[in-house]
Amino acid sequence: MSDDTSSTLHERVETEVPSHLDVTDVQYEGPDLVIYTETPREFADDGNILGQLARSLQKRVTIRPAPGTQSSQSEADAKIRQIVPDDAEIQSLEFYPTVGEVLIEAEKPGLVIGRRGRTMREITREVGWNPEVIRTPPMESSTVANVRSFLTQERGERRDFLTDVGEEIHREPEEEVDWVRITTLGCCREVGRASFLLHTPNTKILIDCGDKPGAEGEVPYLHVPEAAPLTSIDAVVLTHAHLDHSALIPLLFKYGYDGPIYTTEPTRDLMGLLTLDYLSVASKEGRTPPYESTQVREAIKRTIPISYGDVTDIAPDIKLTMHNAGHILGSAVSHFHIGNGFYNVVFSGDVHYEPTRLFNGAVNDFPRAEAMVMESTYGRRNDYQTDSEESEANVHEIIRETHEEGGITVIPAFAVGRSQELMLVLEEAMAEGKIPTMPVYLDGMIREATAIHTAYPEYLRDGLRERILHEDENPFLAEQFAQVDGGGEMREEIASGEPCVILSTSGMVTGGPIMSWLELLGPDSENTLLFVGYQAEGTLGRRIQSGRVEVSLGGRRGPDRLTLDCRIESVSGFSGHADREGLEKFAGEMNPRPETILCVHGDDRATDQLSSALYQKYDVRTHQPRNLETFRFP
Amino acid sequence: MSDDTSSTLHERVETEVPSHLDVTDVQYEGPDLVIYTETPREFADDGNILGQLARSLQKRVTIRPAPGTQSSQSEADAKIRQIVPDDAEIQSLEFYPTVGEVLIEAEKPGLVIGRRGRTMREITREVGWNPEVIRTPPMESSTVANVRSFLTQERGERRDFLTDVGEEIHREPEEEVDWVRITTLGCCREVGRASFLLHTPNTKILIDCGDKPGAEGEVPYLHVPEAAPLTSIDAVVLTHAHLDHSALIPLLFKYGYDGPIYTTEPTRDLMGLLTLDYLSVASKEGRTPPYESTQVREAIKRTIPISYGDVTDIAPDIKLTMHNAGHILGSAVSHFHIGNGFYNVVFSGDVHYEPTRLFNGAVNDFPRAEAMVMESTYGRRNDYQTDSEESEANVHEIIRETHEEGGITVIPAFAVGRSQELMLVLEEAMAEGKIPTMPVYLDGMIREATAIHTAYPEYLRDGLRERILHEDENPFLAEQFAQVDGGGEMREEIASGEPCVILSTSGMVTGGPIMSWLELLGPDSENTLLFVGYQAEGTLGRRIQSGRVEVSLGGRRGPDRLTLDCRIESVSGFSGHADREGLEKFAGEMNPRPETILCVHGDDRATDQLSSALYQKYDVRTHQPRNLETFRFP
Repeated sequence: MSDDTSSTLHERVETEVPSHLDVTDVQYEGPDLVIYTETPREFADDGNILGQLARSLQKRVTIRPAPGTQSSQSEADAKIRQIVPDDAEIQSLEFYPTVGEVLIEAEKPGLVIGRRGRTMREITREVGWNPEVIRTPPMESSTVANVRSFLTQERGERRDFLTDVGEEIHREPEEEVDWVRITTLGCCREVGRASFLLHTPNTKILIDCGDKPGAEGEVPYLHVPEAAPLTSIDAVVLTHAHLDHSALIPLLFKYGYDGPIYTTEPTRDLMGLLTLDYLSVASKEGRTPPYESTQVREAIKRTIPISYGDVTDIAPDIKLTMHNAGHILGSAVSHFHIGNGFYNVVFSGDVHYEPTRLFNGAVNDFPRAEAMVMESTYGRRNDYQTDSEESEANVHEIIRETHEEGGITVIPAFAVGRSQELMLVLEEAMAEGKIPTMPVYLDGMIREATAIHTAYPEYLRDGLRERILHEDENPFLAEQFAQVDGGGEMREEIASGEPCVILSTSGMVTGGPIMSWLELLGPDSENTLLFVGYQAEGTLGRRIQSGRVEVSLGGRRGPDRLTLDCRIESVSGFSGHADREGLEKFAGEMNPRPETILCVHGDDRATDQLSSALYQKYDVRTHQPRNLETFRFP
Repeated sequence: MSDDTSSTLHERVETEVPSHLDVTDVQYEGPDLVIYTETPREFADDGNILGQLARSLQKRVTIRPAPGTQSSQSEADAKIRQIVPDDAEIQSLEFYPTVGEVLIEAEKPGLVIGRRGRTMREITREVGWNPEVIRTPPMESSTVANVRSFLTQERGERRDFLTDVGEEIHREPEEEVDWVRITTLGCCREVGRASFLLHTPNTKILIDCGDKPGAEGEVPYLHVPEAAPLTSIDAVVLTHAHLDHSALIPLLFKYGYDGPIYTTEPTRDLMGLLTLDYLSVASKEGRTPPYESTQVREAIKRTIPISYGDVTDIAPDIKLTMHNAGHILGSAVSHFHIGNGFYNVVFSGDVHYEPTRLFNGAVNDFPRAEAMVMESTYGRRNDYQTDSEESEANVHEIIRETHEEGGITVIPAFAVGRSQELMLVLEEAMAEGKIPTMPVYLDGMIREATAIHTAYPEYLRDGLRERILHEDENPFLAEQFAQVDGGGEMREEIASGEPCVILSTSGMVTGGPIMSWLELLGPDSENTLLFVGYQAEGTLGRRIQSGRVEVSLGGRRGPDRLTLDCRIESVSGFSGHADREGLEKFAGEMNPRPETILCVHGDDRATDQLSSALYQKYDVRTHQPRNLETFRFP
């Protein structure tokens, strides 16, 4: 396809399409091929034509009615409501004449789509508009709502952007692909500032662009000649939304990048939530944020969402497929197929190989995979975690005992990932009577992050998705969960009230509402402070965990120093990262097993010990890269 | 020094200089600091001042008379001839008023310089002109003469160039040096297209830029982002003149590079000779040469010569020192001192570790050396060569036997290096009566290359240099050596005449006059064809060596096919490369021993086996890089 000019492309499509179907125009929009037609209804009638076209053209294909072939908006509105069963609970219909689309928001999108898309096709046939269906989030998320409304408002500009990107992707590659290179811009022999450059003779792809928590000055090496100028980068791929992978994505736009970001929809939304929070934290701490919220919006506008498993052209010589990574919502193992059969590279991103309550285990099965860049967070010889059943039993026991004492259990937790996992643990334990039913208060961004999870149930573990989608048993909506939205007054009320559980950010006790909880609950011996996540060197969480009871809260208000008298406990086993065994299995059971593995995203010892182990155990070539190196394949 | 602006630099120099000495102006010219003075005679009187200034300013310092302070040219001419002893045999005096210099060409430059430069200083004191002394080449070399006259003619433009380079070198570095990187642009797991990029946060240095013999399309990867645009490169360093290191240096100027080339004087001249021949061979073979002779001239004009052992600033954060490599005339082991004590990298270039007849053994002693990029041509486990005594005895025997038969010995040989080594072997053998004295004919570029050797005796082995410089026993001028300068007629005469030896290019029988010799001498059984150099796969030399006697000469004239009936012999042990043992010793006995060694310039097995051996034997970190990789240090 790459040698098609616009007119030969049109001809090519014409020959693939039965003669009774009209092809008015053919255009690329981002990775997609869009066919405009005077006969949208006839296209809709032929249930197989889209699949056939996609296969023969090797493209994702979209059909759009040519202008003037549709029913009027009011006619179409009525007709659609008539076609779609009432159970779908349509919330709104919005018409976009420029693209010939109607956006249908419904409680049950499956019923709008119909079996194998039958209802969607009927809509097109009857009204000539192309339906796009979205789910009404089961929990209201301001992030999801804002992103959707922003994208709606920017639809025109976004369409021009997609056309430009489409032309870039489908341009004729200038050079034969006879090498693939990976340059390490960060995240090697360290955890933080994830950033890699994947290049071929034609294309440069930037993978992730994160910050390094606790070391603000240490940013990815974006100014080296391989990456500079940023306008020379063809595409950015984001593996997941945690700040050590995403924080500096908006910065790219400040420095002149204006191309696409490929990632999953939930990662796009979580990136928006977390980077805006990153800016606000920087302001509060008196640091100058490296970019502004306009750049966050720019990043969202230029994101081209990818669903797990979709093979997507992102450059003339690169196809990207994202797969579930099991780490957090929307996290992706990213597979790059390069140069039409020449080479394949997998970036693990952060992975959890075994299934958790929230997610299926990371995918490690690919058509081909010669090289892998893999995380090594828990790569040390002894980095084994307690299994989840034992961990959960420990949590139950601690909460039960605290409840018996009439105390409150407060758990510092990261907003995205660990909090939701704990919510599921607590909901089940209460349902099964393993701990008494009591209120679970969510403080900080936890509720919002949870709402984003419920907006994308297809990214959750199979059983959990079923509960959310089909059985109205959404565990996140259990009535014991309550948002702390009344500020200091509400916190004081909760602290002086009945036994309960509190989940609060930040996860390492470095700021945020957890500081207030420490002040309110720490001095009383019947309460418990329960750590379930990794506490990094240098954080207050780590100091408390190591036995320090005289703590400073920063002194912005209330007492500057505080003596903790509460019970202090730590339970491991709730990490979003595979432990050493999980990492070994992820690589060892990978199909096919890669020839070369680069161990990154771990400290010196972790990457060293993991790369030695993988080499010895599986006879693969392993490396322990340093930042600023370039590896060449094959 | 790097923080000096021009005026503070002037002040700094003033404070270092005794008050009776005038400092009119101070300027950088390339790596040198030039002091203009109204009192050049007084500067000359103070024998220590130059050395003191060099030490305190950490720069190479040159004193120039300010305009108007010198004697007239005719007065100065007479005075100089009076000061310099007649034995020096002055050939010419040329005055350059713009730089206040007088160029003195003499048969015995040492006598013009005087003990510790005493005579030079006397000249300056008496006439106010700064003398620059060059040797009248003992053999007339058109290359050396052309380069000198070209540089004389371009003196004005060259001075502007040097001023610009000086400003670049002494600019304030923008970034702290916290990393050093080496990118492999060629020559990895292969022999040919040597090219490396050495970069720091401030500076990019290109080391070598060669072609790959027998694979014209395979050129260094100059278009990768690390190197592009070529205008972003600060300096080029050339380790030696062989085409697999130098052929594409002039191409850099076609692609917009306009900076300096640092190399030794003989390498500059040999590069001129060999690249012009490279262009002419390309034309003859009907290929389009990649550049023109104007670019060769450009390269010569922008070369800043460096003598062995001189520490030279080539960038704000890099000092280069070149040392004898023992491989060919002017070949250099290049030592880079980076970031004011931060790191040190050695590029071996091509090396011969043991002394040969022509050269001292390669230098492997440095103040510091953490990493080394080293050649691995003979890096395989069994790449040991016969020792030179045995090799020479074999050559003697073959020539003697051929002479006894009344035949002629014809030796295909590379113009630079091997031919001169053989000339020394033959001259000595005849002087000592080991073989009968008979004519030795030199055909092709051999005589010219030999003349360049005699123009730079200080680059030859100690004993040989002495013979050339002080005893008028220049072996290259022995009367049995005769140039074949009469074309086909002369060759026919020689071939039908008395027993003799013929050295002729090309060394691998791939073209040039050796083809005529094959035609004239090959069919007769009393003659001998003697190979002394490596015959690469795919060359006619290799085919003959392997026993083929029916050969095609290309059919441009004479019989297309030919049956060889002459004796065919091969003698090893004359390589310019260290053998496996030499490579091991070069690295193992290096002082200090580097922490990391990259094995390059050898095929897959050679680099693999050498890097394993060095790792096991010396416990150094070794790598076997591929092209297009980047290594980061420390």
